[in-house]
Amino acid sequence: MSSSRVATLRWDGARLQLVDQRVLPMEERYVACANADDVVRAIRDMVVRGAPAIGCAAAYGVALEAMHLSSTHARHFRAGLDAALERLAGSRPTAVNLAWALARMRARAQAAPDLEPARLAQALLDEAHAIAAEDVAANRRMGELGAALIEDGTRVLTHCNAGALATAGHGTALGVIRSAVEAGKRVHVFADETRPFLQGARLTAWELRQDGIDVTLIADVAAGYLMSLGEIDAVIVGADRIVANGDTANKIGTYSVAVLARRHGIPFYVAAPVSTVDLSLRSGDRIPIEERAAAEVTGFRETSWAPAGIGVRNPAFDVTPAELVSAIITERGVVCPVNERELRRIAGA
Amino acid sequence: MSSSRVATLRWDGARLQLVDQRVLPMEERYVACANADDVVRAIRDMVVRGAPAIGCAAAYGVALEAMHLSSTHARHFRAGLDAALERLAGSRPTAVNLAWALARMRARAQAAPDLEPARLAQALLDEAHAIAAEDVAANRRMGELGAALIEDGTRVLTHCNAGALATAGHGTALGVIRSAVEAGKRVHVFADETRPFLQGARLTAWELRQDGIDVTLIADVAAGYLMSLGEIDAVIVGADRIVANGDTANKIGTYSVAVLARRHGIPFYVAAPVSTVDLSLRSGDRIPIEERAAAEVTGFRETSWAPAGIGVRNPAFDVTPAELVSAIITERGVVCPVNERELRRIAGA
Repeated sequence: MSSSRVATLRWDGARLQLVDQRVLPMEERYVACANADDVVRAIRDMVVRGAPAIGCAAAYGVALEAMHLSSTHARHFRAGLDAALERLAGSRPTAVNLAWALARMRARAQAAPDLEPARLAQALLDEAHAIAAEDVAANRRMGELGAALIEDGTRVLTHCNAGALATAGHGTALGVIRSAVEAGKRVHVFADETRPFLQGARLTAWELRQDGIDVTLIADVAAGYLMSLGEIDAVIVGADRIVANGDTANKIGTYSVAVLARRHGIPFYVAAPVSTVDLSLRSGDRIPIEERAAAEVTGFRETSWAPAGIGVRNPAFDVTPAELVSAIITERGVVCPVNERELRRIAGA
Repeated sequence: MSSSRVATLRWDGARLQLVDQRVLPMEERYVACANADDVVRAIRDMVVRGAPAIGCAAAYGVALEAMHLSSTHARHFRAGLDAALERLAGSRPTAVNLAWALARMRARAQAAPDLEPARLAQALLDEAHAIAAEDVAANRRMGELGAALIEDGTRVLTHCNAGALATAGHGTALGVIRSAVEAGKRVHVFADETRPFLQGARLTAWELRQDGIDVTLIADVAAGYLMSLGEIDAVIVGADRIVANGDTANKIGTYSVAVLARRHGIPFYVAAPVSTVDLSLRSGDRIPIEERAAAEVTGFRETSWAPAGIGVRNPAFDVTPAELVSAIITERGVVCPVNERELRRIAGA
């Protein structure tokens, strides 16, 4: 069993190569980023998505901008870098891993105030590589810890894509499933298709099949019915931001799955690295929820099926209250029960 | 305010004309049915859908077959008619209005054992017209009764299409909304897109806009989040079968909406004619749930977005337990509380 053969992010020696997640699995196409604005666009347009992956991409965006500035605008290097950090921070609002990765890159730059631009650019590239490598290691560790919660024969529901494609590799929620399978457990995955962007149908179904893991695709609306039939044993999802009390923002629809899981007495697990935890916010109602374009709901790519000009609400995330989360699996340990004290004990600085 | 300008079913003097609901609102195309098998195909392929509408269509299918047989196979008329009734009954399993309409057509034929074929065919056509006219009248009456439950300014969520397009006219759930609007109440509708067949995005959004009723389209996954924000005041849906204890089969995803409505203390109403009530089944677990083709989930029409060969579960309906239903609005009265005694009192023979 290997990780997915398609790399979410790949450094080609001069640029960041991103697999275009808007067109998978129909096409395997790459988008090359040469500076911060290329990365801003790639994040905003969802070429790359998934909280840990956009954190890694943003880190590379800072490094790319530093390399670009050091060769062209050395006099304005620090100011240019600060401006790029700002633009990257504004690319998407909900996932906190983005802010986390940018804070780390900014700290790296500030720790070397006298370093000449070309050498600082190299240091920032090294830092981006480290962030990506640490992300994979964290996912591996989460996988080990989380796999202990998955019994042989478990039928797991997942929502959206919290897989290799949402991270630098292995995945968070799907990393737990991968590690359970690697440990010899039989796991069957039900993948919610995850409207409107269809991350489940396109990305989760595809990457699990690449790895030979049993997967059944369902419309989001079918999850409750399958639970009522007793066909789901556990739910595992990723997260975009976990705040101090354990409230968790994740892909729109996650909250509904959590409510249904509670009704049916099914454990609901969140798998996310500590970089997803934002202890600065006390509760989930403080999390900014991105509203995306109507076109995502009125059709898919070139196909449109809703009446022209129809009003649309398209929140990209929702918030699952801590009381519905059975456990949060992090690389530092499993937070259970989910409350502020336990979360601070495991994820606190 | 008039009903939708497109007729779900229209008798053109010789054939049944069905607006093709697979292609609305992108195209306005009609499918002409000249015999029972044309109607079987139209029901099975969802040219016509919605429990009351398929009941009406099946009734016309019997009449068409009788007309066809009377002119070509008069000697085998009764046997041919029985065979057509069988084929129509097998076209879709979950909605009981189909069986109800066919039982009524069969009874009409049996009540005139000596009538010559051509005259019986005319009697059956009259019966089909009566079923359709009574359906519209029932919806109007449900609309009046249901509108009393809708306060001025209500924001209503609906799932699937229980509108004019699901009936012979006016609609069940959307009939209640239409009648409330006709009574001068301001109503804002949130329409779940209703994957996989997108009846909400294509049909509900379209027919409400035709009538100038405020409607906002959302992905199914967003309903719970909007409830958590306090943006939904009531839910109204239709039904495909309501059994003796009040358990209600309706479009897949209805159960999830009902669970979410309960969590948020939002009333959950079902609007359906008495022909949807099946007192012969004691509880919802006895209702046959249709499983439809994988292709409905892996894409939409010519567009496919899931990996080729992926396993799919595609149940077309689910069952909402009576305890989650605040009231059932029928043309004979509002069933509230929803239990067997009240249901038998209002809907019993």
